[in-house]
Amino acid sequence: MRITRRDLIKTSAAAAVLGAVGGVSVAEESLLPSWNKGPARGAIISFVRDTTEKTSSKYVEPKDRVATFDQDGTLWTEHPLYTQAMFALHRLGTMAPQHPEWKETEPFKSALTADREAMSKFSEKDWMEIVAVTHAGMGTEEFLAIVKPWITTAKAPRFDRLYTDLVYQPMLEVMKYLREKGFRVYIVTGGGQEFVRVYSDQVYGVPPEQVVGSSIVTNYDISSGKPILMREPKPFFVDDGPGKAIGINMFIGKRPYAAFGNSNGDQQMLEWTQAGDGARLMMLVHHDDADREYAYGPAGGLPDTHVGTFSDALMAEANKNGWVVISMKNDWKRIFPFEQ
Amino acid sequence: MRITRRDLIKTSAAAAVLGAVGGVSVAEESLLPSWNKGPARGAIISFVRDTTEKTSSKYVEPKDRVATFDQDGTLWTEHPLYTQAMFALHRLGTMAPQHPEWKETEPFKSALTADREAMSKFSEKDWMEIVAVTHAGMGTEEFLAIVKPWITTAKAPRFDRLYTDLVYQPMLEVMKYLREKGFRVYIVTGGGQEFVRVYSDQVYGVPPEQVVGSSIVTNYDISSGKPILMREPKPFFVDDGPGKAIGINMFIGKRPYAAFGNSNGDQQMLEWTQAGDGARLMMLVHHDDADREYAYGPAGGLPDTHVGTFSDALMAEANKNGWVVISMKNDWKRIFPFEQ
Repeated sequence: MRITRRDLIKTSAAAAVLGAVGGVSVAEESLLPSWNKGPARGAIISFVRDTTEKTSSKYVEPKDRVATFDQDGTLWTEHPLYTQAMFALHRLGTMAPQHPEWKETEPFKSALTADREAMSKFSEKDWMEIVAVTHAGMGTEEFLAIVKPWITTAKAPRFDRLYTDLVYQPMLEVMKYLREKGFRVYIVTGGGQEFVRVYSDQVYGVPPEQVVGSSIVTNYDISSGKPILMREPKPFFVDDGPGKAIGINMFIGKRPYAAFGNSNGDQQMLEWTQAGDGARLMMLVHHDDADREYAYGPAGGLPDTHVGTFSDALMAEANKNGWVVISMKNDWKRIFPFEQ
Repeated sequence: MRITRRDLIKTSAAAAVLGAVGGVSVAEESLLPSWNKGPARGAIISFVRDTTEKTSSKYVEPKDRVATFDQDGTLWTEHPLYTQAMFALHRLGTMAPQHPEWKETEPFKSALTADREAMSKFSEKDWMEIVAVTHAGMGTEEFLAIVKPWITTAKAPRFDRLYTDLVYQPMLEVMKYLREKGFRVYIVTGGGQEFVRVYSDQVYGVPPEQVVGSSIVTNYDISSGKPILMREPKPFFVDDGPGKAIGINMFIGKRPYAAFGNSNGDQQMLEWTQAGDGARLMMLVHHDDADREYAYGPAGGLPDTHVGTFSDALMAEANKNGWVVISMKNDWKRIFPFEQ
């Protein structure tokens, strides 16, 4: 028997009906191919069905379909150190010859000698001093011109791959799936908004206006007759923890229907999402795969590395609230796009 | 001769060709119907042609088509006082019985007795005190629930019309035209972001995520087991003057190709827009129509009312930079949607 186009249409109509009544349709079988079949993948597919099928009691108008993703540890690798911190250290190295005094001054001394032990004890003030010299004192366009060549060439030591290659294929598939279903996908990151905007469109398909992040003060200035936005060594907005709920409200003005994170800094974003009515999806990536990526936590007895901490308290919160914990090891068939 | 649908298609194809070679096409004749034919209307149509026709050397990719509009005095009437200030005064009146001390304390005393003379001398600090009691001390959702019934019923005294009826029909047509041509249209207002978001979608077709405005600090709090964003009596971001360029960069992350304003507070937004390459459109509404709306300035010898000041210096800047000044009197055939 030859299968005609009309047969295919019939099949997909039947599948749609099945989907609407809660079964797993033929079309759904092929969704999210890098995910193993299980409750995590199932939760995503059910959520999309609930919010986008016209017949669903939890149907959400396209204009309100908002999904937010943390970046570090949720969309790409954050170990052994956040990519933006690696950039800052590299930039310090480039600038060091002009600053001989850094050899004797903290936090620069430890950073320049890559003293992990000392760096793990850096205070917020220490990091702000590093940000001040590496991320400020220049216009926004000059900053972009410094980040761009770095991010397009710098490699993560363990994998010998570009940092932008170390994105999670399963999450790219979720973003694509949500977009196809009419969701606007935002990145809501503790990282620097201007930094992430340099590559977010190319790497994740997320345009600058859909990146919510931390920022430093900028001042409007005229330089050689042209206006510039001068980056000042002073924090303006910290988009982390409670700041993620605040940032979402300020930048988007709508409550997300789905939120994805991986660490303590994402808790309030998930709480804020869940506090809305109708169908809401809250998910946390758990890094439990030392072979293919990293294992840290300390939830589930994994080591606490102070980078992307997923505490026991967060795990208890997730269990209490019905948030879905994604096991990298068990839920993800493939981790990186470059894997076969 | 009967004109068939096919004839119409041919005509419009011919018109498109004419448009592409720089003439005024038949289709363009019917654009922006509330505008009189003249340089202002012509500048808008030329700009759209330059940025959206594939054959143009100044063609702009759809993803980069961003246009920003000031609100007060650019999209709707701002006299005798900004609508949000009218809301604040109304709210003060509602709250006054619980605050007998306001009868003797400034700035409340002058505000409650509608003492225009005294109010015109209010400092920023005075206004902030009024904002603190009328806009803060509650969660974001409670605030929206207070604004909504007011904005849907309150009327502007002179016109005996809803404030939301006093929007400029010619500007609604520009926003619609730009959207049809693939532009994302943003409001960039000195007014309160949360306030404007209450009605922006319904009144202008601008969704919350495309409203950039001033804001006060919000704090993430848990109230009766539910997260709320508590509005604090403390300014966070002032989206006016240089703040408009800063806000555009922070919220949108892209430089506008077109910017529309009407007062000194819009100068930096227009400078920032013009500093980009390719075709850029900078326009300022000049309120020179005392009969149909208001006449104030003081550019062109109009009275300086300290609400929406368009100074001689701004006019000089506009002339020097080739910004297009829109004369309400001469360029607008119709001002409000309710006019015939």
